[in-house]
Formats: sequence, C-alpha cells, structure tokens
Amino acid sequence: MDFSSKLLENAVYEVSQLPGIGKRTALRLVLHLLRQPQEQTQRLSFALQEMRDQIKHCKNCHNISDVDICDICNNPSRDRSIICVVEDIRDVMAIENTSQYRGLYHVLGGKISPMEGVGPHDLTINSLVEKVKGGQVAELIFALSSTMEGDTTNFYIYKQIEAFDVKTSTIARGIAVGDELEYADEVTLGRSILNRVPFENSLKSS
Amino acid sequence: MDFSSKLLENAVYEVSQLPGIGKRTALRLVLHLLRQPQEQTQRLSFALQEMRDQIKHCKNCHNISDVDICDICNNPSRDRSIICVVEDIRDVMAIENTSQYRGLYHVLGGKISPMEGVGPHDLTINSLVEKVKGGQVAELIFALSSTMEGDTTNFYIYKQIEAFDVKTSTIARGIAVGDELEYADEVTLGRSILNRVPFENSLKSS
Ligand SMILES: [Zn+2]
Ligand SMILES: [Zn+2]
Repeated sequence: MDFSSKLLENAVYEVSQLPGIGKRTALRLVLHLLRQPQEQTQRLSFALQEMRDQIKHCKNCHNISDVDICDICNNPSRDRSIICVVEDIRDVMAIENTSQYRGLYHVLGGKISPMEGVGPHDLTINSLVEKVKGGQVAELIFALSSTMEGDTTNFYIYKQIEAFDVKTSTIARGIAVGDELEYADEVTLGRSILNRVPFENSLKSS
Repeated sequence: MDFSSKLLENAVYEVSQLPGIGKRTALRLVLHLLRQPQEQTQRLSFALQEMRDQIKHCKNCHNISDVDICDICNNPSRDRSIICVVEDIRDVMAIENTSQYRGLYHVLGGKISPMEGVGPHDLTINSLVEKVKGGQVAELIFALSSTMEGDTTNFYIYKQIEAFDVKTSTIARGIAVGDELEYADEVTLGRSILNRVPFENSLKSS
C-alpha cells in the first residue's frame, strides 16, 4: 500500500501487527479513529499502555488480577483442594460463567508448543508442581483445549506429579448439550461414545 | 463479561469501541499484547496518538497528508482541470493503484447520510464548489460508492454546480473484468446492460 502520510502508514503498520488484522482492516480502523473525536484515540492509547505497564498476576493462581491475590483465591468458600488447570483468563471466565465449579484455578499462560517456541519453562508449570508437592492438592482437573499442544502439556504435567498422591482428571468431551449427533465431528462423537456415562448420571445433571 | 482486572476490562472496552470488533475479539487482541514485549504496546499506543494529534489534510484536495499540499496536488504533470470526487483516502489509493488516472482528487471525507447525522457541511463540499466557481475545472468525475448515500451526495453536489460550465461524469459500473455473468447481482448486471459501450471501446481497453 502506498500511503500519502508517514503518520498514517505507521499507525496502520502497528495496528496490523495484531493477530488476525490485515493491512486493509487496520486502515479501516485507523480511518475510523480519525473521524472520531481526538479523546477516543487518547483513551484507547492510554488504556492499552496503562494495562500493559501495570497489569499484575495473582501470586497464587497466576490469573490476571489488579491485586496480589485474586478474588477467587481469596474467597474462603472455595475448595482449595481442587485445582483446575487452564491456559488463560478466558478459560477461567468461561468456567466461572457456568457457576458449576467451586475449586481454585491454575493459569498456565499458554500451552507447550515447540512450533511456536513455547517450552515448559515459559509457563507456570513449576509453580503448579510445587503446589502439588506441598500436599494440599487432592485433585487436578486438566481443562486445556484438546489439541496436540494441550495433550502434550497435560502429559508433561502428569509426568511431573504422578509420584505424588493427587487425583487427576480431564473435563468431559462430547456432543454439546442440544446438538444433533449427525453434525458432530467424528473425533468428538467417538470420544463421547468411549466416555459414556451411566444413564442415572445424565438424569441427575439435567 | 466478568473481568478479574479493571485494567484489563478498560483496555478491552476501549478496543471494542472500534467498528467490527466485539468484546471477545477485543479480549483476544489485548491478551496477545500482554504476551508480547511491552515495547509493542508502547509503539502501538504512540503511533495511534501521534497520528491522531498530528495528522494533516492537504489544503487543496483534503486528502490525508503530512505536508500542506500533497504529492499528487504538487505534481506538475497531473491534469489540474479534471477532479475525481471520492469519499476517503482508500479510494484515492485504489485509483492511484490502477495508474489510469492523471487528474487531481477531491476528498469529501464521507457521504451525506441523515441516518448517521452527516450533513453537507460536515463534508468538504463547499471547498469543491468554490473550485468549480473559480473556473479552472473542466470535468468532475463522481467516484462515490453507488449506495443511496453516494447517489444523494452526487446529486447534492451536482445541483450546486450545474449552473457552471463544467462537465460531470460518474465512473462506469458493470460486471468486473473476468467475472461470470451468472454470479453478478441483478442491479449491477442491469446497469451494465443499460450502460453498454461500443464494442470497439472494449477492444481498445484490453
Ligand atoms: Zn488467584
Ligand atoms: Zn492534495
């Protein structure tokens, strides 16, 4: 693209560095900002910079938090003996939304991915293993996405803690509630047959 | 969405104010920035703010420019008697890309849209009418998008200048070169039949 302004070109370049945003979309977003009052761009710039400079992570679960220990870890009514292992804050938000889980979380910050140069030491795995070694954890629930990277990460953690007295589980995979079987992908359908549950269980949960 | 951090919530809110970006996408973009070095967010914030605060528009054609008179208006080899009327810089870039046009531009900054509260005085229409009154313009080419707003804007400008000695034209609409007739929408197909060109012309342009 041949811009008539270096200022514009630079702004479009930086916006297009965001994932999934091409040059064309970046130009559209930047032109939108130019048509809005100056204050909107100021607020956006300031919010991003303030967040990036000041963001903290909970010292216990590593979730994003404005305080040293997050509200979930600080809640005395949560079961501290169960830890749900997730990739990032979006998973915590999704599970909290269900109101079905009363344990704590451990946010890994990603998945082991040699392709993207993410190794075990880029994640908060050591801190999780230390918790298990401490003997206060009765169960770990692996809730990573069921991709090769997710499975690798689960297995890596499992190997580190299998010597300790801790139960491990993974969240159930299957056909989404309300979905038609014929539209499910075969891997999901296969897993949901292998991991079938006693019929009485399905009566309880509905 | 229930965030565990006000800093995060605020950044997601501001990003989601951009057109076509929902809360979910905004969260994904913001989490990406958190995983990248601090400098990336700094560069992004600074580029946006610098652009918004310092951007200029060419005093002649109103296109975005870092100097008072843009490179196109300043180019002595361009034909100053033909002016192509466009909505914004993207149209200028698209037409310049074809290398088929050697006249100047006039950037309106939008289209008349009562729905979005954009009236004639929010655009650079007066400045265009003054140019025509000055008597130096032989032809105006309307190149706005063929929507109701585009047609309204064309007609509004046309009424202001019809008393003056200036030729007006609009860019040709029709089936895109290489496209199959059967996939064209009926309005485009209808226009391309009504506005058919002598066969010899099509030989010249290919
Ligand atoms: Zn926490
Ligand atoms: Zn200009």
